[in-house]
Amino acid sequence: MVQQIKVLEKVLDANDKIAGDNRRLFAEKKIVAVNLMSGPGAGKTTVLEQILPKLARKAPVGVIEGDIATTADAERIAALDVPVVQINTDKLGGSCHLEALAIQTALADLPMDKLRWLFVENVGNLVCPAEFDLGETLRVGVLSVAEGEDKPIKYPLLFRVIDLLLLTKVDLLPHLRFDLDRVLKNVHAVHADLRVIRFSSVTGEGVDEFLSWLESRAG
Amino acid sequence: MVQQIKVLEKVLDANDKIAGDNRRLFAEKKIVAVNLMSGPGAGKTTVLEQILPKLARKAPVGVIEGDIATTADAERIAALDVPVVQINTDKLGGSCHLEALAIQTALADLPMDKLRWLFVENVGNLVCPAEFDLGETLRVGVLSVAEGEDKPIKYPLLFRVIDLLLLTKVDLLPHLRFDLDRVLKNVHAVHADLRVIRFSSVTGEGVDEFLSWLESRAG
Repeated sequence: MVQQIKVLEKVLDANDKIAGDNRRLFAEKKIVAVNLMSGPGAGKTTVLEQILPKLARKAPVGVIEGDIATTADAERIAALDVPVVQINTDKLGGSCHLEALAIQTALADLPMDKLRWLFVENVGNLVCPAEFDLGETLRVGVLSVAEGEDKPIKYPLLFRVIDLLLLTKVDLLPHLRFDLDRVLKNVHAVHADLRVIRFSSVTGEGVDEFLSWLESRAG
Repeated sequence: MVQQIKVLEKVLDANDKIAGDNRRLFAEKKIVAVNLMSGPGAGKTTVLEQILPKLARKAPVGVIEGDIATTADAERIAALDVPVVQINTDKLGGSCHLEALAIQTALADLPMDKLRWLFVENVGNLVCPAEFDLGETLRVGVLSVAEGEDKPIKYPLLFRVIDLLLLTKVDLLPHLRFDLDRVLKNVHAVHADLRVIRFSSVTGEGVDEFLSWLESRAG
């Protein structure tokens, strides 16, 4: 176990160096890079489908999609006429998260001199992605109300490292036993004052609020 | 990357040896050990809450709960008067899955001479748990209809290694854009003929069918 942790530390050190390179590149090109993290099926791709057309009207947007397998999500993004690169981690040992090196490699296939926004949709996982810095500007967590109120305290690291939480699928609330006050209490127990935006792709709730937040953080 | 994979192989080899010890112990004691795996919030603990009281009327049941943090799930199981041990992986480097050694250690705190059934609720994660043999008799996957139809092809390993899939929260189907035929097609693309049971803790659908399946596989 000790040996395993030592190796993990080496991997993280190497990752942090490349993440630093990515961060410098984003700053130089004035690109706002947003790392979207959640468990599987919380609705990350659907969030992107809601916001990208509106965002792209004002400034150029690119996307990096991370999945173990399939190009399904990249196809959904490409259908919006947004440049997108798919990373499949099954070619990287089936990894449960994206690493800075994979991002650096993907950037070569994006029009970096034109982009203002870059969204990175991480692998659906509430654990591993939070451990790996990609060099991103902003970290946004996504939690669906169908997942239950206890996730922030059961997977605290992710909720600690994010700058914003989108609480998705709120249109389902009338059909769920879900206590909104309790999830907020759990969120703020691990990350005091974290901004939480209620989001629904069905009703459109939260779309404009998320866009305003992004603009306000773009610097 | 090569070094990382070599170390992972060593970790997996060591895990497999201990999993073999667990498997021999379960066989010797005539215990059916069931490893429950899913993404976060698919409803594993709720499934246990539905079946344990019925199962325990016929034969003694024990539970091992795996989480990064909190004893919330163990408390829900203990409320059913079922012996339960909580493993918190934040003491094991924040691991995204359970390993055979943690199970072996937990067994020391369970009444192994009395049990007929042992349920292991793995860490909520569609990636890592599928890679680690615990010595279990049966592997059951849990997927909620709120997670979308694409999960089986995006996280194929888990769906390949399970013996049964519980499709949970089917009471939400009227409120979702969820194509039941498409999820079954995706399940069977990665695991031909995998048995899928529709399950709802709200309506009780699937509870008896799951119990019958368990009895039929108990040997």
